[in-house]
Amino acid sequence: MRDNGLTLQSTYSTNAISGLTPQISAHDFQLSARTLATSQANLETCLQWHAEHLKRAQFNVWQIPFSQLTDWKFDESTGDLMHSSGRFFRVQGLRAKTDLAHLNGWEQPIVNQPEFGILGIIVKYFDGIPHLLMQAKVEPGNINSVQLSPTVQATRSNYTRVHKGKTPLYLEYFIDRTRSRFIIDTLQTEQNSRFLGKRNRNMVVQVDEDFSIDEHFCWVTLGQIRRLMQIDNMVNMNARSVIACMPLESSLKTSPLLPSDSSFSSILWRSINAIESLHSQNDVLSWLTEQKAIHELNIDLLPLRTLRQWQHTETEIKHCSGNSFSIIAVAVEAQREVANWSQPIVAQSNIGLVGWLAQQIDGVLHVLVQAKIEVGNLDIVEMTSTLSYLDRIDMLTSNWQPAFIDCFINPPANRVRFSSIQSEEGGRFYRMLNRYMLVEIPEDEQIDVPPGFIWMTLRQVLEFVRLGFFSVEARSLLACLDLA
Amino acid sequence: MRDNGLTLQSTYSTNAISGLTPQISAHDFQLSARTLATSQANLETCLQWHAEHLKRAQFNVWQIPFSQLTDWKFDESTGDLMHSSGRFFRVQGLRAKTDLAHLNGWEQPIVNQPEFGILGIIVKYFDGIPHLLMQAKVEPGNINSVQLSPTVQATRSNYTRVHKGKTPLYLEYFIDRTRSRFIIDTLQTEQNSRFLGKRNRNMVVQVDEDFSIDEHFCWVTLGQIRRLMQIDNMVNMNARSVIACMPLESSLKTSPLLPSDSSFSSILWRSINAIESLHSQNDVLSWLTEQKAIHELNIDLLPLRTLRQWQHTETEIKHCSGNSFSIIAVAVEAQREVANWSQPIVAQSNIGLVGWLAQQIDGVLHVLVQAKIEVGNLDIVEMTSTLSYLDRIDMLTSNWQPAFIDCFINPPANRVRFSSIQSEEGGRFYRMLNRYMLVEIPEDEQIDVPPGFIWMTLRQVLEFVRLGFFSVEARSLLACLDLA
Repeated sequence: MRDNGLTLQSTYSTNAISGLTPQISAHDFQLSARTLATSQANLETCLQWHAEHLKRAQFNVWQIPFSQLTDWKFDESTGDLMHSSGRFFRVQGLRAKTDLAHLNGWEQPIVNQPEFGILGIIVKYFDGIPHLLMQAKVEPGNINSVQLSPTVQATRSNYTRVHKGKTPLYLEYFIDRTRSRFIIDTLQTEQNSRFLGKRNRNMVVQVDEDFSIDEHFCWVTLGQIRRLMQIDNMVNMNARSVIACMPLESSLKTSPLLPSDSSFSSILWRSINAIESLHSQNDVLSWLTEQKAIHELNIDLLPLRTLRQWQHTETEIKHCSGNSFSIIAVAVEAQREVANWSQPIVAQSNIGLVGWLAQQIDGVLHVLVQAKIEVGNLDIVEMTSTLSYLDRIDMLTSNWQPAFIDCFINPPANRVRFSSIQSEEGGRFYRMLNRYMLVEIPEDEQIDVPPGFIWMTLRQVLEFVRLGFFSVEARSLLACLDLA
Repeated sequence: MRDNGLTLQSTYSTNAISGLTPQISAHDFQLSARTLATSQANLETCLQWHAEHLKRAQFNVWQIPFSQLTDWKFDESTGDLMHSSGRFFRVQGLRAKTDLAHLNGWEQPIVNQPEFGILGIIVKYFDGIPHLLMQAKVEPGNINSVQLSPTVQATRSNYTRVHKGKTPLYLEYFIDRTRSRFIIDTLQTEQNSRFLGKRNRNMVVQVDEDFSIDEHFCWVTLGQIRRLMQIDNMVNMNARSVIACMPLESSLKTSPLLPSDSSFSSILWRSINAIESLHSQNDVLSWLTEQKAIHELNIDLLPLRTLRQWQHTETEIKHCSGNSFSIIAVAVEAQREVANWSQPIVAQSNIGLVGWLAQQIDGVLHVLVQAKIEVGNLDIVEMTSTLSYLDRIDMLTSNWQPAFIDCFINPPANRVRFSSIQSEEGGRFYRMLNRYMLVEIPEDEQIDVPPGFIWMTLRQVLEFVRLGFFSVEARSLLACLDLA
């Protein structure tokens, strides 16, 4: 035996025998996901707490002309929109050339924010059940001002204090490994149709020490937060993203915790724990490799002012067709953090559609995963939901339509397993909403699977999510599935 | 049941009940790795076959001045070295800025070859044992002209026939999924200190139909090819890279196939099959994410002719210090494929050092993995061997030395579990050699692990290798371990 006392743990769970409290295992995450009421919190108190924050939120946001932006300017030579410090983010122009007809020579503004921020949730045991520390947070783009957010949302500028605001509460637990145990720390992309390779560290840390929480924070179980996502615009995108990264899949074939009835949550759990699947992980990788090999993505950054087909007015930069997003400027008056500021923000007036087709194959639910080219992708294609279309569906022409869109437009009600409207990140997106849907196709209905799509179990999806292979839209939908 | 007859398979093996021959499982790859003699081949016949090809190889390579290159030219405005068709590859200049003192403001030539080629090995059952189809292939940079290579090495230019040569034999099995079963298809990087994000599809396909093989090809078991790697410069880099991607790890705790003695191959197998490890896969991901977050890599492409500290003569482009690689030009006379050609090539006169430290932790061998910044990395850092240093070790100063180098310079003989000299890829590198070493540290000797390093079992390494997380140097060393 070695004298430094290192002991092995299983690679496939996070159990370990160190410290006073056990390290959170997949079993305990499952327990948390199945629990709707504890001594710390129930759904009602959580909704009340959110309602109170909604009522008290003193937060005003209004659109302003670009000329009224403080600390932001158009670069003289390029027309790029940038902060006077050169930090935060920059709106540039981009031209994409791909092998797809509808994305060949496409030009658009892009938000370039290459630094990695932290989106982190503290988890702590109460009565043997892991609880998540959520924050009631206002963001300028939020349609309802206050949404449930991760414990910490910190851009790099944020925690190096470029904006001269306060350091976010509890940030120390995500930086100092002696104060917490890092359960998950994984780089995840954001909207690659709007950002150029933007990624954040999605973190889950376990804190054993007791600490008092600020009034803007609240303990919830994983089951509670997922149940709250059945309500439109309640839980923000960052929280959904981190929650999707939590390890739920157990190596046990059956677990006494889990329901064995015919409910949909029971079907979801079987897929999360499934050892068997239509395709092996090596098959999935092989498919993904081929998708990267057959597709082409070349992007060039351009001066923002040279973009063709984009109009630049005093108040917005928008596509001539009217069928896409725009860049606007807003002024913000808030009580918390920095009191007043203005910033550019991405606006989108329509509601996009993010949908997953699911089907049971030999009794195990599989979801249909798409390998999708988006202009900001780090590596050509990214795995995403069956459908992910953020622009205006009513303006689609017969020339090109996203695959499977018909399955999500007025589907039979008994096939719709999940449907709600969720907000995209309110710090960069102004009231941008997507409808998230999961539609289950009956087992005996045959689906033709085009080359860019593959069936995967939820267990496989979760594993690839933690490796950073899935889009934020797909993660968001995954987090919304009610497992209680 | 669904009418399209889809049936599930285990995610963690590649067993399936389709077709006449079973799909190759991890068990059968293990069998192949343990087998040194079959009805198809033994080591002696394989060595004889290689010796014959060496004798018969009519292949002349000599250095020429750049001005004598046919079809290659220096671009007038940038000085970049490029093919007149604009294809194949281009030698450009690069400036790297990182947070590391020895890589800040560093300039160098870089080989830009963004297209994905195919490196593929056909596997076929003989007498119930998977055999690999290897090729005796000449490459201009090979020190001994002929080395054992994958069944197919095809650049994209190669198989779209830009060089007007013949289509590589057996390429159809790697393109047409109706002719073979794709076991592995994974994008893998090459030398990121010399290439800008170059990757190849590393493929293993199973062919069931009988076909006759050309005289330049030979069937070997996985055990045989790994045994041949104990000999210097016998198996080429591409073959080593693909072989490292083969799935060997079994979910069984013990296998009747595997030795249970105290031999080193027995120790390796325990690590390959280990379910327990010092760190979980989520811990490893967490460590890697932090390494990406704390390090910075910014690269700019520059005109080749503007590089500071690089001399450009009639015959070479070399670093002033003499402590690195150079770009030269060679002329080639060969019998096979295109008869005569000339090309630029990367030359390196010293022998580099690629080393892995290993230690048993609670009876399971772990290797010390490094997160390393290299200028051509796709995503800041890449996982690699404990040490990977390609430049001249005798010119290292006291200002900076790679970590753990002392462990590999004159280590006690009883710690050296593997040591041989292997060639880098002979199509782009001229006689570039590295010594590959695995040094085992006794279990009771304490190693201080700096933040950029982490202990992993071979099972963990293999899983991350297939996901494309490991460098070619690390893969190369992994392939060399004798498992028979």
